[in-house]
Amino acid sequence: MARRLNTRLTKRFGIEHPIIQAPMAKTSGGALAGAVSDAGGLGLIGGGYGDADWLDAQYAIACNRPVGCGFITWSLAKQPDLLTRVLERSPRAVFLSFGDPAPFARKIQEAGVPLICQVQTLCDAMHAANCGADVIVAQGSEAGGHGEKRATFTLVSEVADWVYGDFPDTLVCAAGGIADGRGLAAALALGADGVVVGSRFWASAEALVADAMQEAAILATGDDTIRSTVMDIARKLDWPERYSARVLRNAFTDRWHNDIPGLLAVAETESARWNAAMDRGDPTIANTFVGEATGLIEAIHPAGKIVETLVREAIEEIDRVSRVVT
Amino acid sequence: MARRLNTRLTKRFGIEHPIIQAPMAKTSGGALAGAVSDAGGLGLIGGGYGDADWLDAQYAIACNRPVGCGFITWSLAKQPDLLTRVLERSPRAVFLSFGDPAPFARKIQEAGVPLICQVQTLCDAMHAANCGADVIVAQGSEAGGHGEKRATFTLVSEVADWVYGDFPDTLVCAAGGIADGRGLAAALALGADGVVVGSRFWASAEALVADAMQEAAILATGDDTIRSTVMDIARKLDWPERYSARVLRNAFTDRWHNDIPGLLAVAETESARWNAAMDRGDPTIANTFVGEATGLIEAIHPAGKIVETLVREAIEEIDRVSRVVT
Repeated sequence: MARRLNTRLTKRFGIEHPIIQAPMAKTSGGALAGAVSDAGGLGLIGGGYGDADWLDAQYAIACNRPVGCGFITWSLAKQPDLLTRVLERSPRAVFLSFGDPAPFARKIQEAGVPLICQVQTLCDAMHAANCGADVIVAQGSEAGGHGEKRATFTLVSEVADWVYGDFPDTLVCAAGGIADGRGLAAALALGADGVVVGSRFWASAEALVADAMQEAAILATGDDTIRSTVMDIARKLDWPERYSARVLRNAFTDRWHNDIPGLLAVAETESARWNAAMDRGDPTIANTFVGEATGLIEAIHPAGKIVETLVREAIEEIDRVSRVVT
Repeated sequence: MARRLNTRLTKRFGIEHPIIQAPMAKTSGGALAGAVSDAGGLGLIGGGYGDADWLDAQYAIACNRPVGCGFITWSLAKQPDLLTRVLERSPRAVFLSFGDPAPFARKIQEAGVPLICQVQTLCDAMHAANCGADVIVAQGSEAGGHGEKRATFTLVSEVADWVYGDFPDTLVCAAGGIADGRGLAAALALGADGVVVGSRFWASAEALVADAMQEAAILATGDDTIRSTVMDIARKLDWPERYSARVLRNAFTDRWHNDIPGLLAVAETESARWNAAMDRGDPTIANTFVGEATGLIEAIHPAGKIVETLVREAIEEIDRVSRVVT
C-alpha cells in the first residue's frame, strides 16, 4: 500500500491527502474540483464573484462528488442568497477569503458545513478563529491571484503559534508558493496541517484556463510575476484597497502598474482591450493569474496526477531530510 | 552525543550546523560573529557601508575565531580596497549582497576564500553561479533589512532547481523568515543546504542594537513590518532603486511611506530627526530593522543559545513530520 501523509486535516475531513485545491474564481470549475476530490484531496468550486447560473452548471459537472465551494467574501456580502443556495447542496466545506467572515459564519456552522477561512495577516487569523473557523488558511504574498503582503514562510508559523495556543481544535493550512512536494513538506515543517494549492491546479488539464495562458505560465519564472491592481481596474472589479493580485507581468502591467492615474484616464478603452484579450486567451494583453510558483511548473497535468505527485514527492523529501539528521 | 544536521554546507565549511549568521550592517560585529562561530555556525562581520576602522575594531573583538565578512556590493564598489584589507585576514568566507559580484569574484577566489553571494531573484542567482559563487543565498522579501520582492518559499526551490542542475557543486541556502527550528527544517525541505539567519541573531545579546529597539521587535508581530525606502532617504544612503528595506512600521514610515516627494521636500529636518533617534535607540522615530520573523521572536538570547535551539527544534520538527508519513 502506498505511503500517505496523515494529518489533522486528513482525519477531520476524511480525505486521503492533506491537499485543498484553491477555489479560484472562473478557473476552479466542477471538473477540477471533482478530479481533486476523486484523487483524495479536497476539491472546491470557485464561487468567485457570484454567478449563480455558472455555479449551478459547475455543480452539475461535479455531479455527486464531495466538493466544497469558495467565495470572495466581500463579493458574497453583496448577494448573500448565494450562500443559502450553496448550503442547500451540502458542500464538503465553504471557503471564504478576502473579507469579514463574521456575517456568514453562523449560517455555515448551523448547516453543519465546515468553514475554511483564508487570511493574509495574523490579525485576520485571530478574527477568523474567533468567528469559529474550522480551518484557517495562512496565505502568503507569493500566491497567484489576490492576496496581500505577508509571506507564507513566516505567516504560517506565526498563525500556527497563535491558533494552536488559543484554539487547539482549529486547523491551520498554508497557501502561497506550494506547487511541488518540497513545498508540501516545508509547509508541514512550518506547522501546517495541510496546504492549499492554487497555481499548480491552475496549470491542470481540468482548469478553465486558455491554452495560451497555461503555455505562458509554463515558460515563465517566478521573477516574471508582479502583484498589481491594474487588472482589477481593467475588469472594473471593486476590490478593497488592501488586496492586489499576482499575475504574470506583460505589456499591460509594464505600461500601467506605475501609472494608475494614466490608466484611469483611459479606463474604458483599456478595459475593453484587456477583457477582449482575456476572452480570447491572449496573455500578451490580458494577464495570466499565477503566483511565483509558476517557476516550478513545467507541464500541464491532470489534477489527479498532480495530487499523486505532490504526495509522493513530499514523502520523498521528508525521507531525504530525515537522513540529514545524524 | 547530540544529534546534528549534516548537509553539504556543514561538510564544505567544516562547521557543525548549517547556519550562517547574516552579516547585518552595523549590527553584526565581532562579538556576534565570534559567538556564532564558537557555537558551530558560520559567523560573519557585517562590513556594511565600509567603515575600515569599525571593521578593524570588530575583527579585534572576534579575535582569532574563524569568522567571515560581508559587504553591500554596490557600496564595496566605491571602495574596493576594503576587500583587499579583509582578504589579508583570511576570512572564513566573503558574503556579497545587493549588487554585481563579478568585479570581486576572481580576487576572492584567488585568495582561496569561499564566496557566498546573496541574491533576490532567479536571474541574479544564475549570474552569481556563473561568477563562481560557492554558495548562493536565495533571500526572500520577508527578510529584515534590505531585499527585494520574491518570497523565500518559491525562490529557494526555483534557485535550487536551476543551480543544482547546471552547477552541481554550488550550494544553495535560504534567507528570509527563518527564526526557529520550523523555518530551518522547512528550508531543508525546500532544497536548501543551509540557512542564513538575520532577525533572530539581530535579537541576540551580542548584536549591536539598542535595547529599546530589541524590545520593540519582541513585542511586534510580523504584521507590523513594512518594506520601504524612506529609511534610506533619512540616512542619505544611495541604494539602487530595486532594493527596499523591511523594518517595523512606526510614525515615520506611516507619515512618509506613501509621500516620498513630501519627505524629500523636508529631507534635511527629517533626516536629522531620524538619525538622532537611531543614535539614541528610539524605535518610535527611527526604524527597527527586523523582518516578518519578528513575530516568532519572543526573547533576546545569547547567539550560542540561538544556534543550539535552532538545531534542536529543527530536528524535533523533522522527527515530527516524519511521523506524519504512514
